[in-house]
Amino acid sequence: MTLTTDTPLLLSRLGAELPADRLLTDPATLAAHSRDSAPFSECGTPAAVAVPRTADQVAFVLRTAYELGIPVVPQGARTGLAGAANAVDGCVILSTVAMDRILSVDPANRLVRCEPGVTTRRLGEAVAHHGLTYPPDPASWESCTIGGNIATGAGGICCVKYGVTADYVLGLDLVLPDGRRMRTGRDTAKGVAGYDLTRLIVGSEGTLAVVVGATLALRPARRPALSLLAQFPSLTAAGDAVAAITGAGHTPSALELLDRATTQAIVDLGHPLLRPGSAATLIVESDAADPAADLTAMRLLCETAGAGHVATAATSTEARQIIEARRLVSPALGAYMASRGGGLTAFIEDVAVPRSELPRFIGLIEEIAERHRLKIFTLGHAGDGNLHPTVVFDESDPDEYARARTAYDDIMAAGLDLGGTTTGEHGIGTLKRDWLERELGPVSLELQRGLKRLFDPKNLLNPGKVVTA
Amino acid sequence: MTLTTDTPLLLSRLGAELPADRLLTDPATLAAHSRDSAPFSECGTPAAVAVPRTADQVAFVLRTAYELGIPVVPQGARTGLAGAANAVDGCVILSTVAMDRILSVDPANRLVRCEPGVTTRRLGEAVAHHGLTYPPDPASWESCTIGGNIATGAGGICCVKYGVTADYVLGLDLVLPDGRRMRTGRDTAKGVAGYDLTRLIVGSEGTLAVVVGATLALRPARRPALSLLAQFPSLTAAGDAVAAITGAGHTPSALELLDRATTQAIVDLGHPLLRPGSAATLIVESDAADPAADLTAMRLLCETAGAGHVATAATSTEARQIIEARRLVSPALGAYMASRGGGLTAFIEDVAVPRSELPRFIGLIEEIAERHRLKIFTLGHAGDGNLHPTVVFDESDPDEYARARTAYDDIMAAGLDLGGTTTGEHGIGTLKRDWLERELGPVSLELQRGLKRLFDPKNLLNPGKVVTA
Repeated sequence: MTLTTDTPLLLSRLGAELPADRLLTDPATLAAHSRDSAPFSECGTPAAVAVPRTADQVAFVLRTAYELGIPVVPQGARTGLAGAANAVDGCVILSTVAMDRILSVDPANRLVRCEPGVTTRRLGEAVAHHGLTYPPDPASWESCTIGGNIATGAGGICCVKYGVTADYVLGLDLVLPDGRRMRTGRDTAKGVAGYDLTRLIVGSEGTLAVVVGATLALRPARRPALSLLAQFPSLTAAGDAVAAITGAGHTPSALELLDRATTQAIVDLGHPLLRPGSAATLIVESDAADPAADLTAMRLLCETAGAGHVATAATSTEARQIIEARRLVSPALGAYMASRGGGLTAFIEDVAVPRSELPRFIGLIEEIAERHRLKIFTLGHAGDGNLHPTVVFDESDPDEYARARTAYDDIMAAGLDLGGTTTGEHGIGTLKRDWLERELGPVSLELQRGLKRLFDPKNLLNPGKVVTA
Repeated sequence: MTLTTDTPLLLSRLGAELPADRLLTDPATLAAHSRDSAPFSECGTPAAVAVPRTADQVAFVLRTAYELGIPVVPQGARTGLAGAANAVDGCVILSTVAMDRILSVDPANRLVRCEPGVTTRRLGEAVAHHGLTYPPDPASWESCTIGGNIATGAGGICCVKYGVTADYVLGLDLVLPDGRRMRTGRDTAKGVAGYDLTRLIVGSEGTLAVVVGATLALRPARRPALSLLAQFPSLTAAGDAVAAITGAGHTPSALELLDRATTQAIVDLGHPLLRPGSAATLIVESDAADPAADLTAMRLLCETAGAGHVATAATSTEARQIIEARRLVSPALGAYMASRGGGLTAFIEDVAVPRSELPRFIGLIEEIAERHRLKIFTLGHAGDGNLHPTVVFDESDPDEYARARTAYDDIMAAGLDLGGTTTGEHGIGTLKRDWLERELGPVSLELQRGLKRLFDPKNLLNPGKVVTA
């Protein structure tokens, strides 16, 4: 643990008002809270972990640290993949996981008010009792928190039809870096009063303010979905199918792509419907009013595009089995890594390109894998043009580590060259800060830095993330 | 025309590079460009009206005015209702109406790139040829421009199902107040790289930057719609019907409300389906997969809530006739005003409340009308809780003018008291600046002013709108 001269003073000031179980300083806790789930990203050691239960406690922690000039790093469930929740040396970690109340579900206005520590899963279960749904479904939905979803602007699988976290945040209760409270947005369906501070906070990765409450829009419960999987002899054929599905006016509720390596890894895991040897697999889900008809039309488009093997679910059990193939990506990668003797790291990339550039992008990723002699599993949200090429490498092998690092940069460069963005849904954190500068250009970057200074003139809230001050 | 000492210099500098037909100074043109469509709002007289055809010309005008310290007021079609496009004395009006090219329609990525002067109508027609739709449909859609829609964050009737302008803006080409060019956002469906400057510009009413290009998301063409109208003996009954429709999980593509006065005005115009004497009318449109079944279910909910007269369209012609009742509001108000001898002003309010507060809000508006002895027509987007109470008054009668002004304030106060916002979709402009301060509170207001200073440190771009610097 890195002690600054102010650490004892900080602990005594915080300890004077926070209950003992809300302020943790044991080494194991500090170590556990030093980083999120991103590899490659620098992190420091916190001086303390505060786990407030109330917005007043959050304001107290921020005010105190601000007075002492000590950085504060907000954290949710630490499932983030860009290092945005990584500690800096001597900071206070401000974990909002204990602020986990669902304050009200309001079916008449189709909204829910909650604290930031509620998990996405629990929120979904709570609103389901009212016949409603909160659509955003990041891969970590079972454990990630709403506060983290808001901080990162999280996406997910059904976003292709239902939009991302930002589309559901109506209003926010915030604490500014100096401890002042503020509310943005509204409890109404529409509103344009003043500059949109709500949307500015969403995706700001805890660098501008700490979310202590959120008003989120809901939708009526989704209809039962059916699904199909289609396997293609080439990535171009799969890309053609995606273009044809979009061009014909379909809006599937999932349109996921697995490349050859990912398909094979799931086949190896024994999935009953996937066949080995194909270059690409599409998983298509429909929750249209008549999903069977919708899928029949999309199946035809897949076949016309050259799909060799197509399996269409006729029942909800079969539909789950197909979606299961997508959910099996993580275990399949795990099994592959174990088969290579363990000790490997899987680094999930997150680049979005215009949907029409998907086949070219995947082709470039394959070239990058070959050039750097690396195993890259490419999968992702084809309907959004948002892919997660996943580089599997041995962190203990300096050469392989260096090649993985270069491949990671090459993938982002390829995405940008195709008119894409270096992050579709995972964020900038510390990991992509240099790439942000390249993506935005100097004028935009100057304004981004100005925004940071406006909210956080002392550069104490999650410093070094997104932009350098 | 108000000449500052710099006006001759300004005109000579602008005239040196702008073609003669791009820089207008005749008094009729200056007068015509002095204000938008909002009454009650102060305006000045411009020194010149620049009508650039290119982004370079926009940058030149801004750079020149910036160097001379002269304010610039951007304008689209001047259909705005908050005074956000009103001239300030001695300013350059920067009209973007001549930048009206649709640059590309991209069906594969479901987006369109266009210049700001394209009208919402023309954009809609252009994308319709590709089987796509750009949903936002403000009342002025036939003449208003995309640039104005972006500046105001415009809404419309079908927003209840399809969202507002902000939901469709993916990326923007901007010119900053000092003439520098900048791009925000992206051409991809998803993206979270850095703070969301795109969304910050949407709804900023031309006070932060001038939009010279936009990338807008599109949707597949809407299915054919059917509709019904339901007339209720009380506002509470109509409010119950709205709640029941929402509660049952319907998402109509229009859910509009007309109060007693508005209903009567349209009856007086001879609409064949509306009956006189009811307290409220709901107009419900569905473009669901089976709109007839959807409407049958909603009809039942209206009847259960107490609707006396319900007319359901069985054909698209009848459906258009029903929607026509909503489109007739303006002519009906015009006819009412003519029947009172002309010379009256109709002032359209724009308050949004939580949907569940709609009946109470309408009741309060009726009390306000009675208290101030005014005719107020209340109509609006019931499904969004966004109403447009319209005060009709004689501007030449000082007492009636004063009562109208007070009623306008009372309506906003009532909306705020019910947890609402003082503007659902029209914006702040000059008209609601004081109310914005009341709605936001001091901390948020300080940040809003900081944002203005960050983008426009000299306070030259549309000064005095939204926030005072």
